[in-house]
Amino acid sequence: MAYDDQNIFARILRGELPAIKVYEDEQVLAFMDIMPQADGHTLVIPKSPAVTLLDLAPEAAAYTIQVVQKIAKAIEKGLDAKGIVLMQLSGASAGQTVPHVHFHLIPSSVHELGKHALEMGDQEKIKAFAEKIKAAL
Amino acid sequence: MAYDDQNIFARILRGELPAIKVYEDEQVLAFMDIMPQADGHTLVIPKSPAVTLLDLAPEAAAYTIQVVQKIAKAIEKGLDAKGIVLMQLSGASAGQTVPHVHFHLIPSSVHELGKHALEMGDQEKIKAFAEKIKAAL
Repeated sequence: MAYDDQNIFARILRGELPAIKVYEDEQVLAFMDIMPQADGHTLVIPKSPAVTLLDLAPEAAAYTIQVVQKIAKAIEKGLDAKGIVLMQLSGASAGQTVPHVHFHLIPSSVHELGKHALEMGDQEKIKAFAEKIKAAL
Repeated sequence: MAYDDQNIFARILRGELPAIKVYEDEQVLAFMDIMPQADGHTLVIPKSPAVTLLDLAPEAAAYTIQVVQKIAKAIEKGLDAKGIVLMQLSGASAGQTVPHVHFHLIPSSVHELGKHALEMGDQEKIKAFAEKIKAAL
């Protein structure tokens, strides 16, 4: 599948759209999902223009998963999460909605998640979660 | 959380319990989930004794995700999957049932998954999926 550089994550990476960021380096960006399935729902994306995990260069996947670990630990510590669901959806039929590879980190305290991408979350609340995660990094 | 070396994946790694393997090297094992959420549901585990992704050594995580990519491509090719859900559950409250870090690869053709670990799958059918994935590696 060809990469569409007008997808919303590409636009966030270029600074054309805002995001509530929790971590950024040369290769990876982590930011809050604005339609969260649970409080503290965070996304981690490589900056490489790949649509799915299958398209991503192995070196970029290796680096990204290490940042995923780092952010997961900060979510555990900063939000006192009891567990964390990592989800990565490749392909529309798997539920992928934005065609830029992304890892979902969804804190859990109980084994119930909301459905994804149905409604916007409370943006102020989301910003407060971001601050707690950043403080725990 | 302390690692329990009697968990079923540790026992599979030691050869004490059987598994329908699709890939193995010195650091990683991939095998079929015997209680699949969808046809072709495969698990990828590092051989390192870690309970969750948060506990796993970053080097092991980096290697494992690259094998995850390799197996995902084989699932796409071998089973003609239209999409793939990668799921990694850290902590009982996130739905983790076996206390050895594992990555779920769940092929999708429609956006509906069965619930996990509710019933045993048809083992002969699972073996046939394993053969197709191995042939595509």
